[in-house]
Amino acid sequence: MNPSYGFACSDASEPLKPWSFERRDVRDDDVRIEITHCGVCHSDIHQARNDWGWASYPLVPGHEIVGRVVEVGSRVSGFKVGDAVGVGCMVDSCQECPSCAEGLEQYCLNGMTQTYADKDRRDGTPTYGGYSNQIVVRDKFVLRMPDNLDLAAAAPLLCAGITTFSPLRHVKLGKGHKLAVVGLGGLGHMGIKFGVAMGAEVTLFTRSPSKEAEARALGVTNVVLSTDEEQMKAVAGTFDFILDTVPVPHDVNPYVASLKRDGTLIIVGVVGPLDPPVSGAQLIIGRKSVIGSLIGGIKETQEMLDFCAEHGITCDIETIKMADINDAFERTVKGDVHYRFVIDMASLEAPKQAA
Amino acid sequence: MNPSYGFACSDASEPLKPWSFERRDVRDDDVRIEITHCGVCHSDIHQARNDWGWASYPLVPGHEIVGRVVEVGSRVSGFKVGDAVGVGCMVDSCQECPSCAEGLEQYCLNGMTQTYADKDRRDGTPTYGGYSNQIVVRDKFVLRMPDNLDLAAAAPLLCAGITTFSPLRHVKLGKGHKLAVVGLGGLGHMGIKFGVAMGAEVTLFTRSPSKEAEARALGVTNVVLSTDEEQMKAVAGTFDFILDTVPVPHDVNPYVASLKRDGTLIIVGVVGPLDPPVSGAQLIIGRKSVIGSLIGGIKETQEMLDFCAEHGITCDIETIKMADINDAFERTVKGDVHYRFVIDMASLEAPKQAA
Ligand SMILES: [Zn+2]
Ligand SMILES: [Zn+2]
Ligand SMILES: [Zn+2]
Ligand SMILES: [Zn+2]
Repeated sequence: MNPSYGFACSDASEPLKPWSFERRDVRDDDVRIEITHCGVCHSDIHQARNDWGWASYPLVPGHEIVGRVVEVGSRVSGFKVGDAVGVGCMVDSCQECPSCAEGLEQYCLNGMTQTYADKDRRDGTPTYGGYSNQIVVRDKFVLRMPDNLDLAAAAPLLCAGITTFSPLRHVKLGKGHKLAVVGLGGLGHMGIKFGVAMGAEVTLFTRSPSKEAEARALGVTNVVLSTDEEQMKAVAGTFDFILDTVPVPHDVNPYVASLKRDGTLIIVGVVGPLDPPVSGAQLIIGRKSVIGSLIGGIKETQEMLDFCAEHGITCDIETIKMADINDAFERTVKGDVHYRFVIDMASLEAPKQAA
Repeated sequence: MNPSYGFACSDASEPLKPWSFERRDVRDDDVRIEITHCGVCHSDIHQARNDWGWASYPLVPGHEIVGRVVEVGSRVSGFKVGDAVGVGCMVDSCQECPSCAEGLEQYCLNGMTQTYADKDRRDGTPTYGGYSNQIVVRDKFVLRMPDNLDLAAAAPLLCAGITTFSPLRHVKLGKGHKLAVVGLGGLGHMGIKFGVAMGAEVTLFTRSPSKEAEARALGVTNVVLSTDEEQMKAVAGTFDFILDTVPVPHDVNPYVASLKRDGTLIIVGVVGPLDPPVSGAQLIIGRKSVIGSLIGGIKETQEMLDFCAEHGITCDIETIKMADINDAFERTVKGDVHYRFVIDMASLEAPKQAA
């Protein structure tokens, strides 16, 4: 076993605290990674607080993981000690179902194995995430980090990046398209960067007039205050696609109204009900659609990383110390971050008395 | 002017009664049609009762119109006296916007002109529908009825037919696909016929066990009782497409759950809110979508009629007399019709004292 340490919460109401635990020995197809950075995703907070009802404790969050390979299993050929690698939201899947066969492991019909708060498929042990000094992961779920990307700033690509990249690729976003992004947070700012890099004309929907300047700096050509009826009226029927990154239930009807005929509203944030309900007439009159999208498959995640390397895209981050994680959670909930916290794992102290 | 007569309601609470009125003189691009049959659509009832709030009175319903050409304007080259023709939900559009340019007049950005309860684009006079002895319609919105289709049974193709045909074509339904149809009414039974004719394996979702035999006779291979949890569980994740024809708000989440990854729920019935709300998680986990669809363009409506001629498809109808229309409305609301009432216009008596 590999004695490990990190930050965990012991139940839904507790803050994160230092915790020591074991990672499994490296299997023949495993890679052991010394974690250098881990992004702080909204999901980490939802899971730590058991907002979705399927958390398990102790819970070590973190699924935007980057680091260096320190050990490889006997049958691992794709990675060697010293490689810069990443791990996202999944660490395994059945590898046999139609979704896995198509490289869409995130939709594994037998359920993908989540990076934390889940159970390993082979030995049933709990999975623990990246708020930790190291991790042991099946090689097929390890990503290769391109050389020219700053590792810290690239960490959130593993979740916020692929979550926004995948649906934009799925709808074949490109030159000539008008894309709107709802919300300027961790997901939203990546959606803007990808939209611009894919050649689309990008608009931001926001409730904060103060976000205009930062949005324009990211490449948007138009900022629409969603609280301003006149501004909303002015963009009615104008967008091919809207990427809605808001993580809480909200009225999507004004956004549907701003879609062109045959336009598509992409939901990546709201896990709960689309409440207030979508109007049937709004979809019918204009053949509009609402589609959901979940992260991306491993192959596409690697493509996304390579796309980022080619276009010089990383996340805009604020680096924090591991000990400041509880404060970072609070600030993330308030939207007080530009745009993603990333934990510098060098700040994680080894326990005085390791197990 | 062309003195005309038919059945109209004078306000939202009144039954339909005989009424005499004027149709415009034939313009150079108009076709005057002696109506032989008119289908009774759910929308007729909604409009007669002003359920959607945009009715105008006196209101002559009817947008599933078939008949014979009795007069053509000087510039009409596509039709001649005696031709069997049809008119659906639209009688005009701007002909200039991108939607019109693509032959999608139903999505005209300047608003299509509806067959009734609307205003003519040129002279602003009210439009009156097909519960009437004759109608005058711009030639571009007149359909050619194929010779081998029974006119009475073909009338509902102009609305119920194209409403279900168009979205199935839009999603490229074909061999190897599993389609489910929700609801076995005027729209639902046409959806089943088209689904079968396009080569799909078709399932019916219904709340009435009694519908199994009729559904199988229409070609469905499976009937699922949507009220039976076990049956719903058995079809989870199995459909490529679901055509939801239910005309009132209902919970679509169980249907979304029965879609495969990348499956699409097509809404053609519900004009109100999709209430209870669709779950974001349901869309996200499986990249599923909900799309709306409104009738079809004129070109596609002609294609649908020709498809019906080729495959011997018409609607299953009950022919009624014009005087029985109020009773037919009641029975339609109760779902007590197999599957569409069609008014035999020979039963419409001329007023004793025409204007
Ligand atoms: Zn995440
Ligand atoms: Zn699988
Ligand atoms: Zn209709
Ligand atoms: Zn138009």
